[in-house]
Amino acid sequence: MSHLYIYSPSSAVRDRAAFRRGIARLKALGHEVEVDSDALTSHMRFAGDDATRLAAIGRAAASGADIALITRGGYGLTRLLPDLPYKAIAKAVARGTHFVGLSDFTAFQCAVAARTGAVTWAGPALGEDFGVEGEPGEIMLACFDDLASGAGEGAGWQLPRAEAREKPLHIRGQLWGGNLSVLVSMVGTPYLAPPRGGILFLEDVNEHPYRIERMLTQLLHAGILAQQKAIVLGQFTAYKTVPHDKGFKLRTVIDWLGAQVKVPVLTGLPFGHVPTKVCLPVGAKVDLVVEGRDAMVLWGHGH
Amino acid sequence: MSHLYIYSPSSAVRDRAAFRRGIARLKALGHEVEVDSDALTSHMRFAGDDATRLAAIGRAAASGADIALITRGGYGLTRLLPDLPYKAIAKAVARGTHFVGLSDFTAFQCAVAARTGAVTWAGPALGEDFGVEGEPGEIMLACFDDLASGAGEGAGWQLPRAEAREKPLHIRGQLWGGNLSVLVSMVGTPYLAPPRGGILFLEDVNEHPYRIERMLTQLLHAGILAQQKAIVLGQFTAYKTVPHDKGFKLRTVIDWLGAQVKVPVLTGLPFGHVPTKVCLPVGAKVDLVVEGRDAMVLWGHGH
Repeated sequence: MSHLYIYSPSSAVRDRAAFRRGIARLKALGHEVEVDSDALTSHMRFAGDDATRLAAIGRAAASGADIALITRGGYGLTRLLPDLPYKAIAKAVARGTHFVGLSDFTAFQCAVAARTGAVTWAGPALGEDFGVEGEPGEIMLACFDDLASGAGEGAGWQLPRAEAREKPLHIRGQLWGGNLSVLVSMVGTPYLAPPRGGILFLEDVNEHPYRIERMLTQLLHAGILAQQKAIVLGQFTAYKTVPHDKGFKLRTVIDWLGAQVKVPVLTGLPFGHVPTKVCLPVGAKVDLVVEGRDAMVLWGHGH
Repeated sequence: MSHLYIYSPSSAVRDRAAFRRGIARLKALGHEVEVDSDALTSHMRFAGDDATRLAAIGRAAASGADIALITRGGYGLTRLLPDLPYKAIAKAVARGTHFVGLSDFTAFQCAVAARTGAVTWAGPALGEDFGVEGEPGEIMLACFDDLASGAGEGAGWQLPRAEAREKPLHIRGQLWGGNLSVLVSMVGTPYLAPPRGGILFLEDVNEHPYRIERMLTQLLHAGILAQQKAIVLGQFTAYKTVPHDKGFKLRTVIDWLGAQVKVPVLTGLPFGHVPTKVCLPVGAKVDLVVEGRDAMVLWGHGH
């Protein structure tokens, strides 16, 4: 049984039924679930004004929980970055609290990594992942359980046939990344410290391929892609193509990216705004191993 | 009579009727209109592949025209930035060619300023401005005519009542800016060299206020806003608010911005994706003068 702390650092919770379903499910899974006093607060589009959300983050850090889980992403962390309680967050991580989330939470994760070096976890959110009607993703549940129990040592997936490797690939580097839109919005600021020799993973939602290309171009022209040992693409979902794309699609952008960089570009990582998602340690040294079509990110001590 | 050169550096022209109307109108205004051989070419969503668009830019630079005018914006310049013919563009500017455009063209303008210091013009595009059904904006026509005849010395507009100055304001600095989305996509790259003591103007289209705020936050956290002497906001249009904004709107973002910076934030600049737009010299030293509700950007020699 793990102690979970549920809080809202970004947008206001709108779907209260999903919120309740999520909490019920986590309890049914055997966890002790503590809910922050402002988890359902709202101020305009935010889960409370800036001071309220900062205080909630502070309480999450002070909670002593095994996992501090966001209710949802949305928007709101970027404007808090100068005032995040970095020391308290790093201390909590050192004591064993896993901060878990995605999407807007990428801003928190990159800033914490840049300022403190502490590792946080790209993973599910309460509402969209645990609060769904019907069954949550099996892989998500398994990975979250691994994280809660401390048993997780890695995540694997199958590459598309065209990316199969004849010779095995083994790369060691610092894993970082998350939501592409949020990540590029931090380029050039002190809250993003792209590691040299890193392994960069990316996902996004509601962004047309031309915008994905423009964002990748920023990482390219800023010299960030050239410093990576590998680029791992997760799921890019819920965008709408238009007739005048005339063949310009996500695959076009991925092929273009592959031609711009000298390092492996892998796709298919089960992470993003999708039910099937793994948990990934942002800021940790990992091994990326590819054999044939099998790709693995490994961070356990035993491998 | 001015010599105009029409070319397509970004997205493919889709509205050919507007293209033809625009050319007919420019001719009716007495201009000699030269149309690039690839102005109507298309490759996926682009006005030709990268090599084709780079060649068109080269021909525009070599044309000896008084004004090189884009057919439209869209997307496509960002990926060309490493290969733009910077020397030829700077030479053309020195010989008297005014490169005019907006939106995606911001990438061209910022990169040319960063690499060569040459001044280009934020202004209309062929299709959307000259090719409209009905009458083009009067102020746009007058400003374009001033630019073509070399008579332009400045642009003025009226501030909202709340921004009226009791004491006159007079600021001298380098004018720069354009489309916010395109501009932030260059932060951290060698194609954006934000001037210290600059006067930054911004506009955007189809971007929700929360995204405008996130983009401004990037400029803020990157230290770019603190280096400016003034921020001048043009038109932010065609975005859709949603019920869960609950009072979070463009004005919220502008007020927030005003609280983040110590310099004047002025609004109402007639520039953006609107019919009423002025022409502005990107990269030029200008005077920004405010008296009461009257704001002026002046670049003429006589003022």
